[in-house]
Amino acid sequence: MVATTGTSHSISDRYRITTKQLDMPPRLLLGPGPANVNPRVLAATSVSPVGHLDPTYLTLMDEIRDLLRYAWQTEHELTIAVAGTGTAAMEATLANAVEPGDVVLVGVKGYFGNRLVDMAGRYGADVRTMTKPWGQVFDLDEIKSNLETHKPAILALVHAETSTGARQPLEGVADLCRQHNCLLLVDTVTSLGGVPLYIDDWGIDLAYSCSQKGLGCPPGASPFTMSQRALDKLNNRSKPVPNWYLDMSLLAKYWGEERVYHHTAPINTNYGLRESLRIVAEEGLDARWQRHQRNAEMLWDGLADMGLSCHVEQEVRLPTLTTVKIPDGVDGKAIAKKLLTEYNIEIAGGLGELGGRVWRIGLMGYNSRPENVLLLLDALKKVLKP
Amino acid sequence: MVATTGTSHSISDRYRITTKQLDMPPRLLLGPGPANVNPRVLAATSVSPVGHLDPTYLTLMDEIRDLLRYAWQTEHELTIAVAGTGTAAMEATLANAVEPGDVVLVGVKGYFGNRLVDMAGRYGADVRTMTKPWGQVFDLDEIKSNLETHKPAILALVHAETSTGARQPLEGVADLCRQHNCLLLVDTVTSLGGVPLYIDDWGIDLAYSCSQKGLGCPPGASPFTMSQRALDKLNNRSKPVPNWYLDMSLLAKYWGEERVYHHTAPINTNYGLRESLRIVAEEGLDARWQRHQRNAEMLWDGLADMGLSCHVEQEVRLPTLTTVKIPDGVDGKAIAKKLLTEYNIEIAGGLGELGGRVWRIGLMGYNSRPENVLLLLDALKKVLKP
Repeated sequence: MVATTGTSHSISDRYRITTKQLDMPPRLLLGPGPANVNPRVLAATSVSPVGHLDPTYLTLMDEIRDLLRYAWQTEHELTIAVAGTGTAAMEATLANAVEPGDVVLVGVKGYFGNRLVDMAGRYGADVRTMTKPWGQVFDLDEIKSNLETHKPAILALVHAETSTGARQPLEGVADLCRQHNCLLLVDTVTSLGGVPLYIDDWGIDLAYSCSQKGLGCPPGASPFTMSQRALDKLNNRSKPVPNWYLDMSLLAKYWGEERVYHHTAPINTNYGLRESLRIVAEEGLDARWQRHQRNAEMLWDGLADMGLSCHVEQEVRLPTLTTVKIPDGVDGKAIAKKLLTEYNIEIAGGLGELGGRVWRIGLMGYNSRPENVLLLLDALKKVLKP
Repeated sequence: MVATTGTSHSISDRYRITTKQLDMPPRLLLGPGPANVNPRVLAATSVSPVGHLDPTYLTLMDEIRDLLRYAWQTEHELTIAVAGTGTAAMEATLANAVEPGDVVLVGVKGYFGNRLVDMAGRYGADVRTMTKPWGQVFDLDEIKSNLETHKPAILALVHAETSTGARQPLEGVADLCRQHNCLLLVDTVTSLGGVPLYIDDWGIDLAYSCSQKGLGCPPGASPFTMSQRALDKLNNRSKPVPNWYLDMSLLAKYWGEERVYHHTAPINTNYGLRESLRIVAEEGLDARWQRHQRNAEMLWDGLADMGLSCHVEQEVRLPTLTTVKIPDGVDGKAIAKKLLTEYNIEIAGGLGELGGRVWRIGLMGYNSRPENVLLLLDALKKVLKP
């Protein structure tokens, strides 16, 4: 037998640490995501994997594509799950659509707008911004005048700003973009599966999302879609996409009929994603959107009864994520920590401009249920008691 | 109540397809990966997720870091699991280490060497190659003379070429690299957890792997490590890493003490990765490497008894992946298909130069067991019978 360990090395046990069996606390995840996962989805993720080119897996990919099209209300051919978490799908939109020197206009009204700015710059974009105080949204006139000023190749907007809880209305935006021969790129990370969203009716060319919020799946496989107009821009690039893993010209050959090997897919996470999308189709989008709205309103009413107020005006408030003003004199961080340690409930604090000013409460996917609202309100009352 | 679905749109049910409960076939995955997963690992992946900044999750990240250090035999501070499959971790090495104009010398002796060439080019490298017929490996003299000719900033070698089954010896390579002030980047996708590998003793500066082969976890979280020398190069970049998702200067702040939010981790896959690394630590590297070698030799002996021969010389043959010459007159693709449809056993055909010439048989992680060798040999005999 060939010696396997060689003669000149010895194995170090320095990091051969002893660990216990996995034993995670039973958290109720009412922060900005991940949310808890339907047990049906968890069961699917633990099914023994098949290969990423197995005929049965290829069928599953087609099912994911179609079910994503339903959830997003799009007929885009290139509708897939990127093999990473939401930020990877976000980067995929820019990596494929931006060519160095392209003017990219980003609507910044929260943390994720800033992330788009940072990313677009890394792909060589000439980045311009239009800004709003965190928690507000842009109106059509503002968008129109900024398009006229900057004449961008791409307009990037965050539909559901996870850092503020504001919903950016999108009707009419694409018409303005068409007039300026500009692609419309939209972040739907905190809207897909929980908030009315019509990719095709709203003329969205590029969109991305995640699996662990409105869809109620573990993180790790992230919805991505692009229109024929966006594909045309990709196909006319003078240089390859400067990101191999997220290059849609290669990924389209794996998700499309050619089935050319590109990467090993996160197979078990995609088992879960399929199940979570199947649950969306069973429930139906209308019922699902109404459920999210109903439970959010129950939360908002309960908060108001406690004398707490929301940071975002109700008209553009997301049902999936609510920002609650931290009352004067209250240590927001300490309250969130108490909820976690005393009641196993996760909520989050604010990011950036809203750091220390708000709590972020999510009611997403499987977690958007009245019993969770009741429990949270009750626990919040307890921990806020002086 | 606010109307959720708006008035100007109706929901299309075109893609609201009806699907059955997930029902995947019980494949025995003896191809180039993914491999089957220990039920302990599958059980871990289906534990209800906590948040990616939960104190209990941060502890789990530390455990993954330490257990990866053990599996890789490294003390590198920056040792993490990238939130994607192996190709993402591969891209992470180049994205962080390559600056435009850097000479990157790639040893190409199979499909994944070519992938490194493609990727490095996208990051602006001045890519040089040294090549070998697929199935062979480089000796120190060849590496030395190529370093002298090309004077690269980075030498990239594939330790375990998944497309050929050849193991590239690495002892002595780092000394040559040091003499040329060159970083050593190594692909360990098909070696980590199954083949002797000493990151620190071998002086490897950048390495990547995957979860679904020697570690026996589902795909979706991919080991990555970089030395202080590589970190110094990253810290001295004149421009940011042109890949936000894989930027180690940001990721180091999430995996390090600062715990700055970067992305939502693939939490459940990391539950599985922790469990698979825990199993590696329980078994011990020496026993694990010997097990892989023993079962591979059993396979090789059995193949020889059937009159089949291996493509790679035994001295540099990987225990994790064996390339078997397809006998003249045999339709390799049809045989693999028969194994899959009649016996639920997956093996793979060749890629690139070896397309149609070899089968690829993997015995990795949980799947490296004598009963799997027996079954495969028996099934192969049956389907090869004229």
